[in-house]
Amino acid sequence: MIKIRRAIESDFLEIWRIFRSVIAGENTYVNRRDTTKEEAYAKWMNKEAKTFVAESDGKIVGVYLLKSNQVDLGSHVANASYIVDENARGLGVGKALALHSIAQAKESGYRSMQFNFVVSTNEVAVKLWQSVGFKIIGTVPKAFKHSTLGYVDAYVMFLDL
Amino acid sequence: MIKIRRAIESDFLEIWRIFRSVIAGENTYVNRRDTTKEEAYAKWMNKEAKTFVAESDGKIVGVYLLKSNQVDLGSHVANASYIVDENARGLGVGKALALHSIAQAKESGYRSMQFNFVVSTNEVAVKLWQSVGFKIIGTVPKAFKHSTLGYVDAYVMFLDL
Repeated sequence: MIKIRRAIESDFLEIWRIFRSVIAGENTYVNRRDTTKEEAYAKWMNKEAKTFVAESDGKIVGVYLLKSNQVDLGSHVANASYIVDENARGLGVGKALALHSIAQAKESGYRSMQFNFVVSTNEVAVKLWQSVGFKIIGTVPKAFKHSTLGYVDAYVMFLDL
Repeated sequence: MIKIRRAIESDFLEIWRIFRSVIAGENTYVNRRDTTKEEAYAKWMNKEAKTFVAESDGKIVGVYLLKSNQVDLGSHVANASYIVDENARGLGVGKALALHSIAQAKESGYRSMQFNFVVSTNEVAVKLWQSVGFKIIGTVPKAFKHSTLGYVDAYVMFLDL
């Protein structure tokens, strides 16, 4: 049973643990594996965004961050980032975060959602976003430096709310 | 005769003057017309970016900012922002800035350039970028709140270097 709630300050160590394991492979996320704890804090505990955590049996297994994709005259489009604990794959955590973030974006008054940088070779993620309605609306050639595949494309994905 | 050079601290007041006039119409740029001087400073004098100014007869008539579009594993793709003095239209300032920024991006080791948010109804800008080789690689539906046209699309544009 997955429960999703707003993150609080004391969640950061668990968020940091999950984020480190996700970026270690340098194959799905833009951040380098040597990203510092301070940089991770600035990203995930950003006061201008809303951070949510997914818990399973009282343990944090996933995180997402919701914010505006642009300032001012572009601030009606939401952007979000997601990470799932490597040890909690296959439990539907990603899907639960995706659906929760879409509902949350609607509730917050956003008109649509945009991902700027979905690594094209991350098929699990691409399929997950497509399964909840996102469409690929652009392909940025060789935008991501993959640890084993070299430069690969990144997708821009979009969902009307 | 247009001369382009790195911006220095004391250029900011002129940059602010040009930026204010560009955002006043709320029809081409994401920032609201009530953007503060401090916000403008943070954007245009950003220490992690390189800012250049174009001078004509010793007066600043245009500005651009070059930076990485993403951190870390996406930092080989450049991003740039441009503003041209309303009083200096038709002198080729935009084109001069465009060509200079492309050369500068190459020289800085970037592999490509990406614009995330070109307002689709800003035909002058779209044609300018296309004239120097940029292609539209994505269209974000209704991403910009135009002051008179309502919600209009924004383009993602890309150039291989």
